[in-house]
Amino acid sequence: MRKNVGLDSLERVAGNGLLHRRLFLRQGAALLGAAGATVLTARSAQAAPPDLPAWMQAPGAPMSGYGNRATYESGVQRLVNAQPGTTGSGGSRTPIESLEGIITPSSLHFERHHSGVPDIDPDQHQVLLHGLVERPLLFSMNALARYPLVSRIQFLECSGNSGGNNGAEPPQQTAGGIHGLVSCSDWTGVPLAILLEEAGVKPEGKWLLAEGADAAGMSRSVPMAKAMDDAVLALYQNGERLRPEQGYPVRLFLPGYEGNMNVKWLRRIKVTAEPTMTKDETSKYSDLQPNGRALLFTFPMDVKSVITSPSGMQKMQGPGLYQISGIAWSGFGRIRRVEVSADGGKSWGPAALDGPVLPKALVRFRMPWRWDGSPSVLQSRAIDEAGNVQPARTALLTERGTQFRYHYHAIQSWGVAAAGEVSNVYA
Amino acid sequence: MRKNVGLDSLERVAGNGLLHRRLFLRQGAALLGAAGATVLTARSAQAAPPDLPAWMQAPGAPMSGYGNRATYESGVQRLVNAQPGTTGSGGSRTPIESLEGIITPSSLHFERHHSGVPDIDPDQHQVLLHGLVERPLLFSMNALARYPLVSRIQFLECSGNSGGNNGAEPPQQTAGGIHGLVSCSDWTGVPLAILLEEAGVKPEGKWLLAEGADAAGMSRSVPMAKAMDDAVLALYQNGERLRPEQGYPVRLFLPGYEGNMNVKWLRRIKVTAEPTMTKDETSKYSDLQPNGRALLFTFPMDVKSVITSPSGMQKMQGPGLYQISGIAWSGFGRIRRVEVSADGGKSWGPAALDGPVLPKALVRFRMPWRWDGSPSVLQSRAIDEAGNVQPARTALLTERGTQFRYHYHAIQSWGVAAAGEVSNVYA
Repeated sequence: MRKNVGLDSLERVAGNGLLHRRLFLRQGAALLGAAGATVLTARSAQAAPPDLPAWMQAPGAPMSGYGNRATYESGVQRLVNAQPGTTGSGGSRTPIESLEGIITPSSLHFERHHSGVPDIDPDQHQVLLHGLVERPLLFSMNALARYPLVSRIQFLECSGNSGGNNGAEPPQQTAGGIHGLVSCSDWTGVPLAILLEEAGVKPEGKWLLAEGADAAGMSRSVPMAKAMDDAVLALYQNGERLRPEQGYPVRLFLPGYEGNMNVKWLRRIKVTAEPTMTKDETSKYSDLQPNGRALLFTFPMDVKSVITSPSGMQKMQGPGLYQISGIAWSGFGRIRRVEVSADGGKSWGPAALDGPVLPKALVRFRMPWRWDGSPSVLQSRAIDEAGNVQPARTALLTERGTQFRYHYHAIQSWGVAAAGEVSNVYA
Repeated sequence: MRKNVGLDSLERVAGNGLLHRRLFLRQGAALLGAAGATVLTARSAQAAPPDLPAWMQAPGAPMSGYGNRATYESGVQRLVNAQPGTTGSGGSRTPIESLEGIITPSSLHFERHHSGVPDIDPDQHQVLLHGLVERPLLFSMNALARYPLVSRIQFLECSGNSGGNNGAEPPQQTAGGIHGLVSCSDWTGVPLAILLEEAGVKPEGKWLLAEGADAAGMSRSVPMAKAMDDAVLALYQNGERLRPEQGYPVRLFLPGYEGNMNVKWLRRIKVTAEPTMTKDETSKYSDLQPNGRALLFTFPMDVKSVITSPSGMQKMQGPGLYQISGIAWSGFGRIRRVEVSADGGKSWGPAALDGPVLPKALVRFRMPWRWDGSPSVLQSRAIDEAGNVQPARTALLTERGTQFRYHYHAIQSWGVAAAGEVSNVYA
């Protein structure tokens, strides 16, 4: 067994108490007392466990066909934000501050609907593939399920995620309230390329129109190159069939591309020569630039990260040793590195990444931090394999102005007050 | 676009219609008509989609805090098997024939309880670490959550899984009914090594006793080497806190080891010099050998695979092109290769593996198959990175006799009748 070492001898990697990521693996004994375990006397340890708790004194609940979470966890909910005066238009955000690992439970996957969640009978639903093709095709759900499937763990992010941080004052919300329009699932679907090849795309077919079967008829244009690369018609999410809020019985899934393009409740794909310029890609999901012109078709989601623990609206349990935990992702591929700062960006240390680091998936990062009780600013900065670096807020706003609403991906700063309150700050 | 090719020109890799795994990636056009899509005339394609379905004519359901699956999917249930005369003793099996990818939704994770599911208040629950240690420790759930966490996607399998195939007649059930005591999740927990180092294990401490807080006081002995290697005290499952059926608020998780040792509702770890020889490792979970002696402490789950589609109790939709899909896993590490046979083991071809192939996790394999409508026997055979090869049923029974109940991992054979019915056969 390794010998106990004092906290003072821990290996520092950046200012204000950031410690080397291997601390928790190599110097476990250093944690002694730091994390709140009660050290018992030999006598009390022999006496324990004293009484049998109530739940050991009678048999528990029987097996069940489809399980539920513990009632004690019912407070962990998506944060619903409905647009006033509408029915089912708005979103709900994943409570990322309450989750761990990289898989988002399907019940807590973020939502963004333009006219609510349709109740679609899969035996009635069809997908039409037409337009500039040799052979227009119509797929029942049974026919689609006969096609080959592929499975991949990948994130999905609404391009409006984190947009609140573009306001003049930092919104005082949880990490999920600000950044919870991102989730990650094990998606299984039919490669769109197979269906397009079966239909026979004509040489002039360079774009697709994808249309949903919701009352909004949500529709977006997709470049043919993406469709032939890694797009799928997703039928399964985290093992089971898609959830209604994520497009049951079938959605388009475009790894790394802005959420809105991943058309849910897919009913139609039309091959076109040019983008269709739908309402959903002109009046919305375009980015107003400082020069007054709107930028269209900004597809991949940028490199990004956020510390989920500790994070906004939480409270530290006094000075001591903590594990900083967070998520990082990039629409351009794998995350190569995540750096953490505890002094507002003056110094940075490399975080540990939980494997596997998958392309276009969330990755969980962790970093040991000895908080000395002084006011501190925590930040994380992600770098992807394409070399993209998550920018500081001031750098992003200098580049893109303050009028844009989508693709905000700047570094999040969490202020830790001496009393332990954690809040959203601009630093 | 690639040109259409006839089914006859497809690349065969093994007898009775097994085709090369790259078929679906390279020769999509070959599927034309084979999978049941309706080819439309240009005129009918222009007319479609004709009517707006009911669900597009009014706004759908609003956002929600915690989502549910589609009502149309409510038939996908765990198969409950309760022991007569008991309350909450028995198991329920994951319907693997209805799932895709590698993540098992937590609501469908298999169960195996010895006295039901206790309803544990996490604020009242504690974990005691004592025995041959320098400093006995008592952890509240809040204290435990302060420790460093690690996340990994790994399978869990009951050692009694698939045991029905040791009977004289092949049980006629679904794939889940026979092999559904296996599931795979994104587990997050505190490395047990850290807690043991903090407690200070004495040199004579070579084993642990792990005890659960269910009414059965389920308890097992664990070698210290495993505890110090990759064991965790799991707090999260697929992003959210553990489900009650999987040990809420904390379970022991021993990657690759038989399910029963991964003690749920963990209340106590005692460091010991020898195994404790609990009722749960002597009267049960021991393997009767041909010589009449019982084998104890068979910890790692062997290399294994099963085809989930097509599988038992399903029916083929006529001759044509199919994608065979299944899962493979090994308690000894990564799956290196999965081979598929459509002629009862006379010839084998290599299946495609969906990445990432993770150690001690499920991996999804796939293989194209052109069924000509004749009676066929489908099999899969997994090989792991340690070189272990999944054995034929006769080979396993020759080695281990017919009295053993645990660790059955022989090749599953599915018989496909000319009329399309799929059944469990011994081949």
